[in-house]
Amino acid sequence: MINDQKLRTIWVKDESTLQVIDQRKLPHDFIVQDITSLEETVWAIKEMVVRGAPLIGATAAYGMYFAAKEAQEIADPDEYIAISAEKLKSSRPTAVNLFLAIERQMAAIEQAKTITDKIATAWQTAHDIVEEDVQICRQIGEQGLPIIEALSRKKAGKIVNILTHCNAGMLGCIEWGTVTSPIYQAHAKGIPVHVWVDETRPRNQGANLTAWELTQHGIPHTLIVDNAGGHLMQHGMVDMVIVGTDRTTRTGDVANKIGTYLKALAAFDNHIPFYVALPSTTIDWQIADGLKEIPIEERSPDEVKYIYGKAADGRREKILLTLETSAASNYGFDVTPARLVTALITEKGICAASEEGLKGLFG
Amino acid sequence: MINDQKLRTIWVKDESTLQVIDQRKLPHDFIVQDITSLEETVWAIKEMVVRGAPLIGATAAYGMYFAAKEAQEIADPDEYIAISAEKLKSSRPTAVNLFLAIERQMAAIEQAKTITDKIATAWQTAHDIVEEDVQICRQIGEQGLPIIEALSRKKAGKIVNILTHCNAGMLGCIEWGTVTSPIYQAHAKGIPVHVWVDETRPRNQGANLTAWELTQHGIPHTLIVDNAGGHLMQHGMVDMVIVGTDRTTRTGDVANKIGTYLKALAAFDNHIPFYVALPSTTIDWQIADGLKEIPIEERSPDEVKYIYGKAADGRREKILLTLETSAASNYGFDVTPARLVTALITEKGICAASEEGLKGLFG
Repeated sequence: MINDQKLRTIWVKDESTLQVIDQRKLPHDFIVQDITSLEETVWAIKEMVVRGAPLIGATAAYGMYFAAKEAQEIADPDEYIAISAEKLKSSRPTAVNLFLAIERQMAAIEQAKTITDKIATAWQTAHDIVEEDVQICRQIGEQGLPIIEALSRKKAGKIVNILTHCNAGMLGCIEWGTVTSPIYQAHAKGIPVHVWVDETRPRNQGANLTAWELTQHGIPHTLIVDNAGGHLMQHGMVDMVIVGTDRTTRTGDVANKIGTYLKALAAFDNHIPFYVALPSTTIDWQIADGLKEIPIEERSPDEVKYIYGKAADGRREKILLTLETSAASNYGFDVTPARLVTALITEKGICAASEEGLKGLFG
Repeated sequence: MINDQKLRTIWVKDESTLQVIDQRKLPHDFIVQDITSLEETVWAIKEMVVRGAPLIGATAAYGMYFAAKEAQEIADPDEYIAISAEKLKSSRPTAVNLFLAIERQMAAIEQAKTITDKIATAWQTAHDIVEEDVQICRQIGEQGLPIIEALSRKKAGKIVNILTHCNAGMLGCIEWGTVTSPIYQAHAKGIPVHVWVDETRPRNQGANLTAWELTQHGIPHTLIVDNAGGHLMQHGMVDMVIVGTDRTTRTGDVANKIGTYLKALAAFDNHIPFYVALPSTTIDWQIADGLKEIPIEERSPDEVKYIYGKAADGRREKILLTLETSAASNYGFDVTPARLVTALITEKGICAASEEGLKGLFG
């Protein structure tokens, strides 16, 4: 809670100042960053002050508002707005939500006649984009909540243990998150839940982000290494697994953070339900075979060889974990085949991870 | 190679000095540590200068030699030797090889009449324990080599990609290691091999130890996060998996470093052979159900929350990876059911991971 408001990742302070959580500093420091111009918006996206597809989109949408405001001082405002859109697009070239948010702003701004109208339109559109994400995430939570309620009943009210990988929480979105939304809603209803948080090497989004936001929300949780989930599932310590997704095929294959597939295999082997929470915008209707058709990003080997943390004196420190000379490989995502997915939880409802399942909901 | 000798983890410099690699300093520094007394032996085991069951046993065996030498200056040498044995045993209370080596030394020393004989016997027994481990590991390599040779032929001489977890290498043993022995022997025969090294959180034995010793042996290798193996297997980038074991049931269930089970599931799902290399001394003939009967050690949460590495200025630095207040859980091992194990590679031969398989070899 900040200023009696529910905690969000992005909020408007006033008409000239946007505020975001500086996610680079989490979990050790909570720093609110002011954004007051297009240039600062580009910087915040590029430097990963903000991260997570919906949040990047929302930030960029406000960037277009700043661009429109700055354009009124310029001889050719339309040109300035168009150049600004390109600058924003190139700030994180692979983020689909970034493009969508900017295209939507451009279409809205073009409709407006005067520069004053353009500014007002951009302000309203950015606000709409933020509120739509909040609503979609809240709906995902409402759809997923009965799953946790049913497990709680089955366990006669004993704690429901939920394992998750990476961060598909509030911090990547605006308010509820996707994976975390059913968990936050269950907790709010007084259902006892506990979350096993995979640290999620190499970038440790679980340890850095998920553990932090669960702490903010008062959700009991335990950090584990990515190696531990199988053992916990073998011993009845996990009641359900729930993860997010970057892209889901029309057949229900799920691309998500590297290591997700291993947890899905363990859940399947131990008859534990494995859910994927997603806004329907991440369904790629063009693709049928996730393993063959989803390209997997290879990232810098240094993310594997080096790690960041807090030194004894409080400084943020980067350390080398292996020989300088050893090669390292760093695939960012893997694909979990639909056969291992119990169900998809979307804002429109829950469906089987299959072409029929998705068609039933969206067809 | 050191002084034209094949690299070992422990060797005799002269009758008053044992030398070991200080494994706490790997991979960033290669430091040879002198051990010249019982007290220094206890310290080296307790402080994990040496680690790995066979190496701990061998070091303790030389500790008993130092005890016998020191005893000749004492009024009651037998009492001094007995007290020394207890001190050594309590240096790492759960290491089975430690007890076995000390019991064997005690039995040998008791047979000798004079203190001079006792010293000579302890010296010879320590030497025997070391050489027996070298021979067992060499034999494991000879048994496993044909598997790699067959894969190499099947791939028409293209690089055989081998994935391993944790360190079951020379560094835990004396010279060949268990898992690494077939790899070193294949490499020596000119068979092109490449090893995917799981970093093996939380203690990072893959990144710290396996990567180091593969570098020493000139074996091409690539470090990966523990999350990556499933993706590599899905995409044909792994030809075999080979891991060690701390304890194997008579039915072929395998207890090994946490996360092994997840790799076994992925290998099974992708029809990739999954081998376990082991000296037959680690077979527990009393136990039939690994999941129910093998107790799994829970270690300090701080191993998950903090990590060691080399800072930019070269210092060894410990950093905090998550919130100080977050709980963490740290199970050291998991159990891979026999159904997921393609075969066990022992010094006596290769067998199915089953009661019949093991009986066929050892019955």
